[in-house]
Amino acid sequence: MGGDNAPAAVVEGAMRAIHETSQELEVVLVGQEAVVRDALDAHSAAADLPIHVQDAAEVITMADSPTAAVKAKRNSSIHVGLTAHKRGEVGAFISAGNTGAIMAASLFLLGRVNGVLRPSVPNIYPTIKGECVALDAGTNVDCKPEHLVQFARMGSIYSRLIFNNETPSVGLLNIGEEPGKGNEQVKAAFHLLTDTPGIHFYGNVEGRDVMHHTVDVVVCDGFIGNVMLKFGEGFVTAYPIMVKQTLARQDASPEVKQAMMQVIKTVTKRLHYEEYGGTPLLGVAGNVLIGHGSSSPRAFERLILAAVAAATQNLAHSIASVFDA
Amino acid sequence: MGGDNAPAAVVEGAMRAIHETSQELEVVLVGQEAVVRDALDAHSAAADLPIHVQDAAEVITMADSPTAAVKAKRNSSIHVGLTAHKRGEVGAFISAGNTGAIMAASLFLLGRVNGVLRPSVPNIYPTIKGECVALDAGTNVDCKPEHLVQFARMGSIYSRLIFNNETPSVGLLNIGEEPGKGNEQVKAAFHLLTDTPGIHFYGNVEGRDVMHHTVDVVVCDGFIGNVMLKFGEGFVTAYPIMVKQTLARQDASPEVKQAMMQVIKTVTKRLHYEEYGGTPLLGVAGNVLIGHGSSSPRAFERLILAAVAAATQNLAHSIASVFDA
Repeated sequence: MGGDNAPAAVVEGAMRAIHETSQELEVVLVGQEAVVRDALDAHSAAADLPIHVQDAAEVITMADSPTAAVKAKRNSSIHVGLTAHKRGEVGAFISAGNTGAIMAASLFLLGRVNGVLRPSVPNIYPTIKGECVALDAGTNVDCKPEHLVQFARMGSIYSRLIFNNETPSVGLLNIGEEPGKGNEQVKAAFHLLTDTPGIHFYGNVEGRDVMHHTVDVVVCDGFIGNVMLKFGEGFVTAYPIMVKQTLARQDASPEVKQAMMQVIKTVTKRLHYEEYGGTPLLGVAGNVLIGHGSSSPRAFERLILAAVAAATQNLAHSIASVFDA
Repeated sequence: MGGDNAPAAVVEGAMRAIHETSQELEVVLVGQEAVVRDALDAHSAAADLPIHVQDAAEVITMADSPTAAVKAKRNSSIHVGLTAHKRGEVGAFISAGNTGAIMAASLFLLGRVNGVLRPSVPNIYPTIKGECVALDAGTNVDCKPEHLVQFARMGSIYSRLIFNNETPSVGLLNIGEEPGKGNEQVKAAFHLLTDTPGIHFYGNVEGRDVMHHTVDVVVCDGFIGNVMLKFGEGFVTAYPIMVKQTLARQDASPEVKQAMMQVIKTVTKRLHYEEYGGTPLLGVAGNVLIGHGSSSPRAFERLILAAVAAATQNLAHSIASVFDA
C-alpha cells in the first residue's frame, strides 16, 4: 500500500524482479487483499508467478504521525509485513510508505541490534566509478562522535556485503583533509575512527570526494547527509535545464540538440534513485529496506532485488555478529 | 602575489577588468615591485592603462600559518594592500592568496563591523535563474543560532547591493520544510529568524532548493555550507565524466559527440567559480574579496569587477549602517 503509485507499481515491480533475478524469489504482497488482488488481476502473467498476497486491513498514510500510527494501526501492511519477517516467513521487508512509520515499526517490532546506539539509513551515491555509501542520510541529527563510528562500522558491512568491496575504505566527511580540521563533532570522531578496529579508515574527505568515489563509505551527521543528498537531487534536475538553456543560445542542429538531451536523460537516469530502489535501515534486527515515495515499477524492481541481496547475505545477522559480540 | 598563477594572471585580469567596465577603474597591484613590473612589461598595452604598482617586500605563502604570518610578515602584499584600503587610498581589496591569512589580516587591520559577531564568507551558487548567496561557506563552524541570524542579515544586504534583489528572500537550510524540523541549532534559528526585522524570511529550505533558486539567500552553518559547496564542485567535474562514459557506449558520430562535449563545457564553465571570481568577506570594516587559489585571468577579471561593485555600493558601509545602529 506504500508509495504514490501503489499497488500497481508494486505489482509490476515484483513481476519484473522475479523475471530479472537468477535466484528463487517469492514475493508476498502485504495489503488490503481485495485492492492488491485487483492490481494483480490486471496482469494475466502474474497468475503463473510466485507472488502471494497477505491481507492487512489498515493503511498508514504519508500524513499519519509515525509514532501514533505504529501504536494505533496494528493491522497495517507495515505491521503485518514486519511481523512476517520477524517470524522468519520472509527474508526481508520492503516498503515505499511512510518512512518514519517504517522506522518506528521496525524498532518496535524487530528492535535494534544489540550494541547499536542508533539505526541509520544511508544514501547510495552513483559515482563515476561504482557506488559510494554515505551515512547517515537524515534519520539522525545532533549525532555524537560515537554514533559516527557506528555508522562507519555498519556502512562498511553494507558496502562489503552488497557492493562486494572486500575491504571498504571509510572517509570522515569534513571541511578539509588535514587532521584537526572541522567542528567539535568530527574532530572527536576522527580520533575515535583512528582507533576503531575492523574498519579501514582513510581519514578526512571533503564534499567533492563523494561523486569521485575517493572512499567506499562516507560518514557524516544525518543533517549534513540529508542536505548533501537533496542538494545532489537538485543538481541532477537543474543540470538538464542548464543544458537546455545553453542549447537555446547556440545554433546547434536539431539532431545534435536531440542527441544531447537523450544523453542527458541517460545520465540523469543513472543518477536517479530509481536505479538503487531504496536504502536499508541498518542496525535493526531484520533486513528492512525503504523505497522512495514516488517509486516507479523500475524502482520497486530494484528495491526488491536489493532486498534479495540483503536477505541472501543476511545483512542484519552480519551487523549483529560485529556489534553483539 | 596571491594564487597559483600570480602575478601573470593578476596582471591579465586587471587589464581585462579595465577594458570590461564602463566605470573609471584604477588598479593598484601590490607585491614585490620587480616581479610585478616584469609581469606588466610582458604586455605592451599595459603601459597605457591606469595600473599602478605598490611595493610589498614579503610574501605570505599558502603554507604559512595565517595567524603567525599576519604577525610576522607585516610587509606582505596582504598587509600593504589592506592598509591602503584602510587609509581610503583604494576602494576595495582583493586577493587570491592564503584565505586564512586574508581573513586574519582583515580582522587585525580593518576590524569587524560593530555588532557583527563573526564575519562570514558566502558562496555564490549559479542557479537555473540567477545567483543564490549561501552563507556561511566554511569559515564558521559550530555556529550558534544568533550567528545564523547575522548571516541572514549580511547575506540579504549583499544580495540586494550586488545582485539587485530589492527584497531578497532568506531560507534556512534544513532537512525538511516544516517548522520544527532539524537539529537543535536550526530549530532555535528558525524562531529567531521569524522575529528578525529587516529580512524577508521564507522559512526552511532543503538542499534541492539551492540550485533551483527557491530563495535569494540560504543560511547555514559553515560546516554544512562548505560540504555542500565542495559536493557541488565534485558534481560539476563528475558530470562531464558521466556524459563521456555514456557517449562511449553509444554509436553517435564523432561530430555529434564533439558538439555535445562543447555544450557540456559551456555548462561547466557557467557552474565554475571563475564566473563569480570570488566571494566577499562580509562583516569586516572594509570591502575585501577573496579569490580561488587557482584563479585564471578570467577569474581575476570577475573578482576585480565584483570588487568594483562592492566599492561602488559601499558594501561594508551598508552592513555597518544596519549592524552598528
